[in-house]
Amino acid sequence: MPSLSLVSLDGFPMVKPGDDLARLTLDAMAAQDLAFRPGDVLVLAQKIVSKSEGRLRDLASIDPSDEAIALAKETDKDPRLVQAILDESTDVVRKRKGVLIVRHKRGWVMAQAGIDQSNVEGGEDGQLLLLPLDPDRSARLLRQEIERQTGTAPAVVIADSFGRPFRNGTTGVAIGAAGLTSYMDIRGERDLFGRELKVSTIGHADEIASAASLLMGQAAEGRPAVLLRGLPATGDSPASDLVRPIEEDLFR
Amino acid sequence: MPSLSLVSLDGFPMVKPGDDLARLTLDAMAAQDLAFRPGDVLVLAQKIVSKSEGRLRDLASIDPSDEAIALAKETDKDPRLVQAILDESTDVVRKRKGVLIVRHKRGWVMAQAGIDQSNVEGGEDGQLLLLPLDPDRSARLLRQEIERQTGTAPAVVIADSFGRPFRNGTTGVAIGAAGLTSYMDIRGERDLFGRELKVSTIGHADEIASAASLLMGQAAEGRPAVLLRGLPATGDSPASDLVRPIEEDLFR
Repeated sequence: MPSLSLVSLDGFPMVKPGDDLARLTLDAMAAQDLAFRPGDVLVLAQKIVSKSEGRLRDLASIDPSDEAIALAKETDKDPRLVQAILDESTDVVRKRKGVLIVRHKRGWVMAQAGIDQSNVEGGEDGQLLLLPLDPDRSARLLRQEIERQTGTAPAVVIADSFGRPFRNGTTGVAIGAAGLTSYMDIRGERDLFGRELKVSTIGHADEIASAASLLMGQAAEGRPAVLLRGLPATGDSPASDLVRPIEEDLFR
Repeated sequence: MPSLSLVSLDGFPMVKPGDDLARLTLDAMAAQDLAFRPGDVLVLAQKIVSKSEGRLRDLASIDPSDEAIALAKETDKDPRLVQAILDESTDVVRKRKGVLIVRHKRGWVMAQAGIDQSNVEGGEDGQLLLLPLDPDRSARLLRQEIERQTGTAPAVVIADSFGRPFRNGTTGVAIGAAGLTSYMDIRGERDLFGRELKVSTIGHADEIASAASLLMGQAAEGRPAVLLRGLPATGDSPASDLVRPIEEDLFR
């Protein structure tokens, strides 16, 4: 019978800029007597990828524009944070007190352009953590580096948590992926009675990110790496395929 | 180290109106030498719950209104199907050729009010499968019945797949749940550095549905039941908590 297992790679140290995530991952796996097998998926929290890539910005160094100051007033946020959000975005999608939803330069519609002040040393008045510059590339390079060091190339998913229209609560979402089919289009396949399926596209990498998120947690315990085992192998397509082009979206 | 396992309960027969899902589930589990343990989560595909509850509607018996006929033309759908969609909904949220997104009477914003023609015997020109009348209640009753028959009460999630604004592909979503906290609000909790978390609400039951969806598949092989093991116990709140009230939604 088909089955999946998810294991949290505990013992991951606090990640600092310049850290080698492949090395940290393999050390954490070795400490749990785990080694990659073909078909494995490694899911990493966006935060540690961003930290290893040094995607930090000093809040104190930011000089907010008039636009940022006005928007900060509207949304009840720090004008320097709002400036950082605008710098990462192409446009503001929705705003109101406490809420600033933008379209990130990479197409994701999300709160605060994914910028985080929590779980950053010296946060609040110190540093902002931005999303990785190109998380699909980060995933691909990590996959290659693990293959170089071990001879086995796991699929890699870089996971974040997004809020959603119409539904309460964030869910895990893939912002980067390599070594699996991120977005599956099974239109044309047939159901049990031989009729064409109606629901026929799947946000596969997002479902993987959501599954891993069940183990990662959001709070103090922070478990940033999860090994997922048992998925049938698929192709290789980036998480950017999960971003619906703006001209096809009915809710922009 | 924290870990999760998901197992597909294969050997589930085709479900018919009136079938006892508790019995079918326990038979499928016994055939795989599985028995419920405290903390287990049973995830069932919406389709089999709807079928067991006889939520079928004859397409031939539907007499479409003028509104349905006009909307069918706009969306390029069967006017009788459109009538059935309208009957399940409170309003049309978005429409265009091939797309009809409504607010279901239970608040879900979804395509076609969740009505399915695939995987229904005699579909297309025959029968429509509607969503369960009250999936939170269905989940609660199933949980109680399994407890009655076995002495152990698993959490139960009834899963469907929804499309999403801004992102390609459907993902698993909980439309009914019992025995776990469907929507987690961890605002006020602290991060690793003692600061309040920014991302602080979690669509927990939706993440469970997405995880199970990785095993269920959409196509012919159809695996309608998944056992999830290893989640820490939480409280007990319905999946209806995941529906954002219309007045709080920025995207209606």
